[in-house]
Amino acid sequence: MTQTLQRQPRLLSIEGGEGAGKSTVLSALREALLADGFDVVSTREPGGTPLAERIRELLLGGSGEPVHAETELLLMFASRAQHVREVVLPALHRGAWVISDRFTDSSYAYQGAGRGLDEDFIATLERRVVGIEPGLTLLLDLGVAHGRERTRGRDLLGGGTPDRIERERDSFFERVREGFLTRAAQHPDRFRVIDASPDAASVAAAALAALVAYRETLR
Amino acid sequence: MTQTLQRQPRLLSIEGGEGAGKSTVLSALREALLADGFDVVSTREPGGTPLAERIRELLLGGSGEPVHAETELLLMFASRAQHVREVVLPALHRGAWVISDRFTDSSYAYQGAGRGLDEDFIATLERRVVGIEPGLTLLLDLGVAHGRERTRGRDLLGGGTPDRIERERDSFFERVREGFLTRAAQHPDRFRVIDASPDAASVAAAALAALVAYRETLR
Repeated sequence: MTQTLQRQPRLLSIEGGEGAGKSTVLSALREALLADGFDVVSTREPGGTPLAERIRELLLGGSGEPVHAETELLLMFASRAQHVREVVLPALHRGAWVISDRFTDSSYAYQGAGRGLDEDFIATLERRVVGIEPGLTLLLDLGVAHGRERTRGRDLLGGGTPDRIERERDSFFERVREGFLTRAAQHPDRFRVIDASPDAASVAAAALAALVAYRETLR
Repeated sequence: MTQTLQRQPRLLSIEGGEGAGKSTVLSALREALLADGFDVVSTREPGGTPLAERIRELLLGGSGEPVHAETELLLMFASRAQHVREVVLPALHRGAWVISDRFTDSSYAYQGAGRGLDEDFIATLERRVVGIEPGLTLLLDLGVAHGRERTRGRDLLGGGTPDRIERERDSFFERVREGFLTRAAQHPDRFRVIDASPDAASVAAAALAALVAYRETLR
């Protein structure tokens, strides 16, 4: 039974709220690593395997039945348990880089800070069922109103309707943002906080610079 | 955050392996309580709410993707977290009896003893997300070969094909059976072990006798 987290140098996670630009940054990192000849697996949470994607549907679908905070937390970790064992660890073991759109820090921010669930319990789940943590986590930090504005634009352009969690109140997303910043302050060795308010190209450039600096530390 | 389990006198659980006759016993207990004028909610795990039933489908469906033990455990507790909050506690609070076909003891037996997951971790999940335990648990104990024989008969009669967990090997079910008996030995105040090898009417009669004796203790 894993009791301490194993840091995985080739596991990168991208964290942040809605509209922060995680997908653009993920593509930029992926392309840069591919161009340097690496094997790269890009993935996301919740999801990343067929079963985990079905858990994602339960989490985000919104059927009318209230989803209790504890249920949400355990579904997130069930999906993560599957994702880590089916996708992340096999890829790392064959030497690939793995870039995940969200990882365990999202549970601390959304279910911990956002929903008020106990951080120690989340840490227990992390140790018992995840067992690993990223070498580098890029937190794309953006004001809640600014993120709303961007996702509204995306929705108008046909990007789909907001999911169950996206429909939460601003006060929830304020707590989530603070939760992420607290995680970053607690784990400065692993986190890089990137201001996500400029245009997409500038945010991607900052993310790429963070990757370059990080790779220097691995030499 | 609940740290100790609250015993619920009107919550009854029925535990045991496949073919032990849980459904027949559940009906018998339900009818007896209804005849005495009580409000009775009968339910099951995994499942019991629309969302929890969808989690049940993920657990038992078997899509080809291996379901890791940790994923299985967390899906079970996600379904239970939802079931307890949406069905069990509201019913108990309005004074109803609740009879559940399986409850937390099944996770100790199947994911603990059966899959080898750590019992302390299961206990943590129980305290953190369930918080309650039944006043009376009837364990219908049956030899694995005997249970197989009965479910084979049921399948031939059109009762459906075995689910993902029912397709496990006999050695798995032997561990599950031992796991249940160990739970019963550890919690003699709450468990009644019923020999499930006789005919259905005799098993139901033994279960009803246990209910009568239990209700005497509540006076």
